[in-house]
Amino acid sequence: MLATTERTTVRQRPQRGSHDPDLIAAILDEALTCTVAFVDDGRPVSIPTTHWRMGERVLFHGGMGSRLGRMMAAGADLCVTVTLVDGLVLARSAFHHSMNYRSVVLFGQAEEISGPAEKEAALAALIEKLTPGRYASVRPPTQKELAATRLLALPIAEGSAKVRSGPPVDDEADMSWPVWAGVVPVAVVKGEPVAG
Amino acid sequence: MLATTERTTVRQRPQRGSHDPDLIAAILDEALTCTVAFVDDGRPVSIPTTHWRMGERVLFHGGMGSRLGRMMAAGADLCVTVTLVDGLVLARSAFHHSMNYRSVVLFGQAEEISGPAEKEAALAALIEKLTPGRYASVRPPTQKELAATRLLALPIAEGSAKVRSGPPVDDEADMSWPVWAGVVPVAVVKGEPVAG
Repeated sequence: MLATTERTTVRQRPQRGSHDPDLIAAILDEALTCTVAFVDDGRPVSIPTTHWRMGERVLFHGGMGSRLGRMMAAGADLCVTVTLVDGLVLARSAFHHSMNYRSVVLFGQAEEISGPAEKEAALAALIEKLTPGRYASVRPPTQKELAATRLLALPIAEGSAKVRSGPPVDDEADMSWPVWAGVVPVAVVKGEPVAG
Repeated sequence: MLATTERTTVRQRPQRGSHDPDLIAAILDEALTCTVAFVDDGRPVSIPTTHWRMGERVLFHGGMGSRLGRMMAAGADLCVTVTLVDGLVLARSAFHHSMNYRSVVLFGQAEEISGPAEKEAALAALIEKLTPGRYASVRPPTQKELAATRLLALPIAEGSAKVRSGPPVDDEADMSWPVWAGVVPVAVVKGEPVAG
């Protein structure tokens, strides 16, 4: 279990919260993107980016010039957020409409991954996430490309998951209201590849 | 056009950036969720939530007890981030792998929507976003339910969009590398409704 700290205690609808590392890992693995939030000049900034997981760390990459990469490499406090939407929950009452979702919020500081071998292994893991088995076939990174890429790792140590699933929960008095109620599933799907 | 301020100038790959309000509105409308980032006790917090748009404002809702709602109602500086993934960009070289995406980052402060009529109109717009035409059929909110719901609006005034589209861009020297290259489209799709 991840540690339950003051800022990882799920207060809103706590029954939906979890610190189960397997659940957190599964959500991180399924999501293609996250947001990384940091404080810049006292104000919040949250940037969408790609992440991937290697064991108990979430990885990120960027060019050497990017502000996000610089902030992360400098040890800024981060908040990484991942969301998967699983369904639209259509209730009989306006008030009880909702969504089914799985989300993760992680806090911490990232460390830079240095050394060509570690950096190449990290890039390989990203490509394997996108298309398992692909890394062996692509042109591997050169020393120059590795030097131009900043790779960062955030320990999966402080954070939580939150999950809603199942049908709408209407008030008893509304159960005979004459409207369809239920869940419209939502999923991310891959289409036919387009060569280019 | 949205104003180009210091913090909405797209610096990384600026050719992908835009301040076009129609593009920003379209991305906000298509996305089912966003993250709202704020600073709490000097540290970043980024919470996933549902958003919807009414004209030139993005709306949010929550229970009266939620920290996010309280922070927003108190006028905290916010950063709202929306991401749509359109494809996996599989290049010939490891280095040039990418994603096609459309994202929006907005900055500003939210205002609370008060008054039962305004609050009901805002909730109706959320349900119409989930399922156009549905609001007329559901059991409308009671005064008590409206009082228990906090509704907030962020002006779409300071922010930017960022878009990548199209095939991978490989180095000329890699064009004959013997691996399939192209785009795997990614889309969010709705499945068969499940009554419940």
